[in-house]
Amino acid sequence: MIFRKVSIIGVGLIGGSIGEALKKKRLAKEIIGVGHRTSSIKEALKRGAIDKGTLKAVKGVEGADLVIIATRVGLIPGFGRMIGKTLKKGCVVTDVGSTKAGIVGLMEKSIPCGAAFVGSHPMTGSEKRGIKSAKEDLFKGSTVIMTKSKKTDTVAVKKLERFWKSLGVSRVAVRSPEKHDRIVAEISHLPHIVVAALINSASGESLGFASTGFKDTTRIAASDPDIWRDICMTNRKEILRALDNYGRNLSRIRKLIKEGSGAGLCREFGKSKARRKSLS
Amino acid sequence: MIFRKVSIIGVGLIGGSIGEALKKKRLAKEIIGVGHRTSSIKEALKRGAIDKGTLKAVKGVEGADLVIIATRVGLIPGFGRMIGKTLKKGCVVTDVGSTKAGIVGLMEKSIPCGAAFVGSHPMTGSEKRGIKSAKEDLFKGSTVIMTKSKKTDTVAVKKLERFWKSLGVSRVAVRSPEKHDRIVAEISHLPHIVVAALINSASGESLGFASTGFKDTTRIAASDPDIWRDICMTNRKEILRALDNYGRNLSRIRKLIKEGSGAGLCREFGKSKARRKSLS
Repeated sequence: MIFRKVSIIGVGLIGGSIGEALKKKRLAKEIIGVGHRTSSIKEALKRGAIDKGTLKAVKGVEGADLVIIATRVGLIPGFGRMIGKTLKKGCVVTDVGSTKAGIVGLMEKSIPCGAAFVGSHPMTGSEKRGIKSAKEDLFKGSTVIMTKSKKTDTVAVKKLERFWKSLGVSRVAVRSPEKHDRIVAEISHLPHIVVAALINSASGESLGFASTGFKDTTRIAASDPDIWRDICMTNRKEILRALDNYGRNLSRIRKLIKEGSGAGLCREFGKSKARRKSLS
Repeated sequence: MIFRKVSIIGVGLIGGSIGEALKKKRLAKEIIGVGHRTSSIKEALKRGAIDKGTLKAVKGVEGADLVIIATRVGLIPGFGRMIGKTLKKGCVVTDVGSTKAGIVGLMEKSIPCGAAFVGSHPMTGSEKRGIKSAKEDLFKGSTVIMTKSKKTDTVAVKKLERFWKSLGVSRVAVRSPEKHDRIVAEISHLPHIVVAALINSASGESLGFASTGFKDTTRIAASDPDIWRDICMTNRKEILRALDNYGRNLSRIRKLIKEGSGAGLCREFGKSKARRKSLS
């Protein structure tokens, strides 16, 4: 057992799944869930994802060895400020947010000496949300990016790496918060924006002809708007950079279509085929 | 039985699946397969998708009641010119191409009086290709768009509609070739281009962090380049139109990110969520 008392702030899809996995694998002696609705705490208790629940974050983190903030990105720094003074010595704090540079900077100011903050981003999930979609094997075979800044405690990084792997994560990559934000802008944030614009640009009649291909392509567009607003608002620089690079790739294909260049189109689509094949 | 002798030109994924479905459901007395490689004809014979095979299209369509041209788009008009004079009176010719205005115009010139051409576009398929991926239930529950121009024979449309439904197609929509091309530009061709540009714009390191979301989004990018070259080359006007409309939607989101407008982003992502939810 790496951590004795674990507090999870936000018992939704990710927080709930962490709790369920910890319980199932007997990796924590006690799990406290902090929710902002009584109903989700009740559900988390019913599912056995947590041992105790509270609506009060400060109370919930008392005596914890590990605190995981599993709320949407926009709420994470506020919880950091709220709990900072209550954390016990040696406590490790992490989050599961999809953007990192802003969060790490703010959290490092809020978490006092004696405790340690390390950012985490589990690269798994679903377009679904909430404790009802939680499952103990959500992390199985997945990747987590953890962050390391100049201030990051190396021992805490090692502890958290073991923590994530014990949940079934198969790959933990450690990057600077800025590098993380660049990577996920390209591989996660840009795709969401591209797909949102795609489905928003189709006419109602055309949507009536959507096949499985279109549905697979746009599945991620069903995620909640507030999650994606938070992500876009906290990773603006890298997302704009990725969008501009994407725009150049799209313009190149547009130009080839306009000019009727069959050979050029074969080259572009051949490149995308090879890249997609390399992923599966 | 609607057709006695059916000739399928191109025994790949679509042509092979049509053959397998016709045999399984005992809907044709004889099925002739026309291939351009001996190996695919042998495989089609082995799988029972066709009764006889030939490399010669003209020979293959002799005496046929129904001819289905199931090659990539760029080859369809050439086969039309090749077989026109051999078709027996009353023969119905269709294709399964993904673009229609150009094909219908050329085919109507090639198919003689006494025979009838009606364009078909089965809105199903796979990023896979070839007879080895064929399956008799490929069309089950799918949609086919058939075309109707001023010259289209209404009786042939009815016959073909029954044909497609007998293969398991649940919806047959009849549109003008031009309207078809506009619809599929939005719901099929634009998505392919958007996703190709997306995967082409990611760095190698970022691709190493691709999760299931990214893989689902980009699955269609694994299709063959020559199929998509043909589609882009024969539906340029509508694809460019769809691309420009898409570009406006994308620019709107980009502007909101740049300006840091959380409310505007929630509106755009809320729209895409609602649209995606309406599809499932």
